[in-house]
Amino acid sequence: MLPGVKLDLSLAAGELTAQLVDIESVSGSEGPLAGAIEAALRDCGHLAVERDGNAVVARTDLGRPQRVALAGHIDTVPVAGNLPSRLDGGLLYGCGTSDMKSGVAIQLKLASEVTDPVVDVTYVFYDCEEVESERNGLLRLSRNSPASLDADFAILLEPTGGVVEGGCQGTLRADVRARGERAHSARAWMGRNAIHEAAGILDVLRSYQARQPTVDGLAFREGLNAVGIEGGVAGNVIPDECVVTVNYRFAPDTSAEQAAAHVRDLFGRWDVTVTDAVGGARPGLDSAAAASFAAAIGGTPRAKLGWTDVARFAALGVPAVNYGPGDPALAHSRGEHVPIVAVAECEARMRAWLRG
Amino acid sequence: MLPGVKLDLSLAAGELTAQLVDIESVSGSEGPLAGAIEAALRDCGHLAVERDGNAVVARTDLGRPQRVALAGHIDTVPVAGNLPSRLDGGLLYGCGTSDMKSGVAIQLKLASEVTDPVVDVTYVFYDCEEVESERNGLLRLSRNSPASLDADFAILLEPTGGVVEGGCQGTLRADVRARGERAHSARAWMGRNAIHEAAGILDVLRSYQARQPTVDGLAFREGLNAVGIEGGVAGNVIPDECVVTVNYRFAPDTSAEQAAAHVRDLFGRWDVTVTDAVGGARPGLDSAAAASFAAAIGGTPRAKLGWTDVARFAALGVPAVNYGPGDPALAHSRGEHVPIVAVAECEARMRAWLRG
Repeated sequence: MLPGVKLDLSLAAGELTAQLVDIESVSGSEGPLAGAIEAALRDCGHLAVERDGNAVVARTDLGRPQRVALAGHIDTVPVAGNLPSRLDGGLLYGCGTSDMKSGVAIQLKLASEVTDPVVDVTYVFYDCEEVESERNGLLRLSRNSPASLDADFAILLEPTGGVVEGGCQGTLRADVRARGERAHSARAWMGRNAIHEAAGILDVLRSYQARQPTVDGLAFREGLNAVGIEGGVAGNVIPDECVVTVNYRFAPDTSAEQAAAHVRDLFGRWDVTVTDAVGGARPGLDSAAAASFAAAIGGTPRAKLGWTDVARFAALGVPAVNYGPGDPALAHSRGEHVPIVAVAECEARMRAWLRG
Repeated sequence: MLPGVKLDLSLAAGELTAQLVDIESVSGSEGPLAGAIEAALRDCGHLAVERDGNAVVARTDLGRPQRVALAGHIDTVPVAGNLPSRLDGGLLYGCGTSDMKSGVAIQLKLASEVTDPVVDVTYVFYDCEEVESERNGLLRLSRNSPASLDADFAILLEPTGGVVEGGCQGTLRADVRARGERAHSARAWMGRNAIHEAAGILDVLRSYQARQPTVDGLAFREGLNAVGIEGGVAGNVIPDECVVTVNYRFAPDTSAEQAAAHVRDLFGRWDVTVTDAVGGARPGLDSAAAASFAAAIGGTPRAKLGWTDVARFAALGVPAVNYGPGDPALAHSRGEHVPIVAVAECEARMRAWLRG
């Protein structure tokens, strides 16, 4: 795209979504889209706008007793032949339609048009959510200017199918290593086959009974899975090592430390290296602002099973939920799409809530 | 080494081994060693010498009723910090000492000194045995000039610890593929984990009862093993594919086709792709020349479990055995070595046999 494409915030949220989708913004290349968002928000006289890298923060300052943050990431996974966007039978197709430029379009509509909300609002647009944690724009903002994320309650407009999703599960990755002894494969009995030994690791995974605990009223569902396996030296060698990479998704009543201890215990017969562990976030629906939001949106809140950036708000002491028009099952798929009517409905409900 | 190093065939076989080892000849770089061997053999008036690439064939033509081939490869696996050779306590250390320049030294000693053998002898020195089959010098010779390999009986001087090893087992490699269905690992139950499914493949391997059949009087020992495993898409994805690479070593009473059918049958629940299958060779110890050789060497012949180039002679209709001074367990190891006394003993027994 050419630098300086101008966003038209007077479009309906669905049409604005299409405009956002057509400004390609794969993680690390959000510059043009961040620029367009910043320019559009600076045109709104009632907002204070700041830019940090490819993140943009815009806020009302009306002296309201409560402040709410509406946050969304503006990057996408790599394009998979699904740009430009395409409208077909009321469904808008294209990279980022569901995850999560439809949510970003709603943020922009509310930011520009709800000039007199009943709570003060901080609109956060950030980069690099789809890549490794260290590059995450919300993490960078929380380090560079934690005050800019200060709020009584936060909503991430991640795809949830229009249902309020509370909290999120934690995630841990570990390498579980079976060892053996090399030998020529023509004389296998002189060695010990580490791949055969790894069958024991897979047996633990296959027989694992995952918990489904209720936390703060929401039902979570854990999972323990192999996400990778690797072993082998050469076609004529009994291998001396086989590594199973395990991913443990755990409910927010369990800390990252407890999760690591559980995995070490389960695989006690083998070498376990925890390579990555981050806790989840409790639903936080008992806070006043969260409860009023959930009541205004209606429906029955459910637990968020995937890890999301609500955990970053939780770490700052800000209760947070996920709520957006996209379908989480479509995220990252080539056929990603969002129903135009869902975008409009989501926007209308949030608009009504902000207007009191 | 400098081009043109001259071999001294008057050295004892052990010392000649050291000279050969010190002329580095990793597969594909056998030129200098092949040149030195060719030059040394051309100096022997009683031999007709031919060169084919980095292979050298030298033959007596005495009109004897029987012809025997003595064959050895002159290449080695990559050097592992174990050159130049080093003599320590009667053991000669270095890359290729066992596999199989000690055998090559014996060939050279016999070729130059046994000018009047009771059988005609074809001495074959060839390249690229330690790499993929298509580059194998013996295979090339069998295509370029099959007549040069014509014989009633062949002996490969591969390491056998001074015992006659008959025939060889076949080897087959197959990819056994478990399939599943991708899903986000936070919602694993929406997919099917192919790595967990592959546990069934490993169960078949772990419970497999390998045959130990007797073929032509020699006891073989089969084996079925995983030599590789690979699966996984990303750290947050339930994988839809896991491939176990299986190596089947089968006795020479079974053809490559029968071996493939057996493996397909065992893993019938999964996709099986046979990537490589080559039959073994029956011991052939019932041929007159083989029996006389085995009797002259003494000891109890045993089965060769690894695949060797005896199968190439067998494919040409030439019964063949392995017999050499090296220790097969040391082949390809950094600490590879050969006892000087074993080289001398092996040479003496073969010399006596050739002299009648």
